[in-house]
Amino acid sequence: MPAPEPRSGSEASGASPAASPIEALPAHPDTAGEHLVLRVLQASPHDTVGALRQRLAAGVEVDSAEAVYLLDARRRLLGRVPIARLLQARAEQRLADIAIAPVPAVRVNADQEHVASLAIQHGLTAVPVVDRRGHFAGVVPALALLEVLRREHVEDLHRFAGIGPEDTNRARDAVEAPPIRRARDRLPWLLVGLVGSMLATWIVAGFEATLQARVAIAFFVPGIVYLADAVGTQSEAIAVRGLSLSRLPLARLLAGELRTGLLIGLTLAVLVLGPVWWWFGDADLALAVAVALLAASACATTIGFALPWLLARTGRDPAFGSGPIATIIQDVLSLLIYFWTVQALLF
Amino acid sequence: MPAPEPRSGSEASGASPAASPIEALPAHPDTAGEHLVLRVLQASPHDTVGALRQRLAAGVEVDSAEAVYLLDARRRLLGRVPIARLLQARAEQRLADIAIAPVPAVRVNADQEHVASLAIQHGLTAVPVVDRRGHFAGVVPALALLEVLRREHVEDLHRFAGIGPEDTNRARDAVEAPPIRRARDRLPWLLVGLVGSMLATWIVAGFEATLQARVAIAFFVPGIVYLADAVGTQSEAIAVRGLSLSRLPLARLLAGELRTGLLIGLTLAVLVLGPVWWWFGDADLALAVAVALLAASACATTIGFALPWLLARTGRDPAFGSGPIATIIQDVLSLLIYFWTVQALLF
Repeated sequence: MPAPEPRSGSEASGASPAASPIEALPAHPDTAGEHLVLRVLQASPHDTVGALRQRLAAGVEVDSAEAVYLLDARRRLLGRVPIARLLQARAEQRLADIAIAPVPAVRVNADQEHVASLAIQHGLTAVPVVDRRGHFAGVVPALALLEVLRREHVEDLHRFAGIGPEDTNRARDAVEAPPIRRARDRLPWLLVGLVGSMLATWIVAGFEATLQARVAIAFFVPGIVYLADAVGTQSEAIAVRGLSLSRLPLARLLAGELRTGLLIGLTLAVLVLGPVWWWFGDADLALAVAVALLAASACATTIGFALPWLLARTGRDPAFGSGPIATIIQDVLSLLIYFWTVQALLF
Repeated sequence: MPAPEPRSGSEASGASPAASPIEALPAHPDTAGEHLVLRVLQASPHDTVGALRQRLAAGVEVDSAEAVYLLDARRRLLGRVPIARLLQARAEQRLADIAIAPVPAVRVNADQEHVASLAIQHGLTAVPVVDRRGHFAGVVPALALLEVLRREHVEDLHRFAGIGPEDTNRARDAVEAPPIRRARDRLPWLLVGLVGSMLATWIVAGFEATLQARVAIAFFVPGIVYLADAVGTQSEAIAVRGLSLSRLPLARLLAGELRTGLLIGLTLAVLVLGPVWWWFGDADLALAVAVALLAASACATTIGFALPWLLARTGRDPAFGSGPIATIIQDVLSLLIYFWTVQALLF
């Protein structure tokens, strides 16, 4: 830890909001600023454990007491001493000697989910917040982190299922609200899905002649669409939470996902080939179904993975890339892949 | 707070595991016991703030310092004093006077997700744990609660998407593991889905004569199956997290959900009736599609809601009731509803 300028003990303990030089920032929703508390334990790294304990024994007003934050004279964060560690230390030890440093910190405008991820990654129960000049402002306390994680959990599930943001923070409401309000919250994405369904109908209608010639082609439509969806949904679930944790370049992640999709598609294709052949006594039809399944699976993993990533890149929550829209895109592509394959191999 | 028997100060501070009378319990995975830490701050409610501070200043070994727990002579939990509140109190105050009581606590074998829910509900950053005789054992600390919430979040998403439990704790692994392992983790549910797909094929094949007579019936299969799925997935997402938070009787919740499904189905049915009639110039076909959509939506909400509930009732995680199995059940039912409606109204 660099040697900071000494500062007086009284100045450093339990700062009040007024004493803090941080500018009054508007708290944007879903950012660290929304959950920021200013009154936390602060000290100079030169202070001794005993001196700090004496100061604490005199009574200090704080909103969060997870750790003591060590600051230099310019309010730069030099380290933190978890309160449990402070209790165990010998009175003559200097705080600098028992501090954990460096301390990860976030900006006031950091996304709340990023703040919670950082806490888990670094084993912090409160995450320090700094202003844009790097001055210590306060912390996002443990209880706020718990609430953020629960809220994001419900939001992800609801986005996965295409339920409007109006309801996402109220998991209990979603099962208890009057049916009319629940239907209203759920309809917007379903109406988008209805347009997608019409598109699917239009595509199948476009292959009317093919279906007229061999009606058995219609038998496999629900199965292939279902399996490609299931494969794509897996890719979405993996991308939605996994992307933020991985530091690998996207090209490598996407290549891995595409290979996974090909392996899955190949397995499914090999497994259906025999039964369909045996069942309908038609090797060409069985081959067409198998090839379509392979292509649709590979396509589904790529789209399921790429959509959340695209949204994350444009600064939106990757969970928006999952759910109804991704599914309808996959359904339409699966239908096209299946009918094109059938036309190429059977006619 | 009831008046407990006084106990000596030294006995009450920072108990070591050996001093705790709790029997050595095997820590079952995913329970409070797995995350339990024994060395926490303990005191008698008769102690003064000043006396406790002096004891703490002498140095105590603890694993979690979120609060001081007030115990009677038989180790029953009487209240808690958050550490921030202890720092603000006047030295002459008795701990009983600044304590928060009663304190919610969990058994050692409580499900970890229940523990995290309790923490958020009651604003606790550490959840007290008692043994089966009600004796205080220790706490699940804040960091464990954060990890539990993150883990359950990823598990829910993965279950929703039908990804094996092997991978659920490792969100980063799921995007970075070699494709062969990723395919292996994802295949089990897809193979179940493959059997379901064959069932769907078998059902559609069973209506071969119907399709031969009017091939246009096939045009609406992907759209109706997609919309019923989308409606059912919403119900699953709502049930998976909402059920544990609601105290209403199931019959009422299910009735509300069914009404929501009917409202949604009615809206979708009304919206498709005109376009399909205009598009195919066939009022009977349009009516059949609309009626099937209404019935399939109502059915999908009921199944999407009931499956997670059934699993929760049998003591399993409701999230198992979502995802691939629920989807295939819904797909098969939607197909049957559609073809039955078409046969009843068109032939």
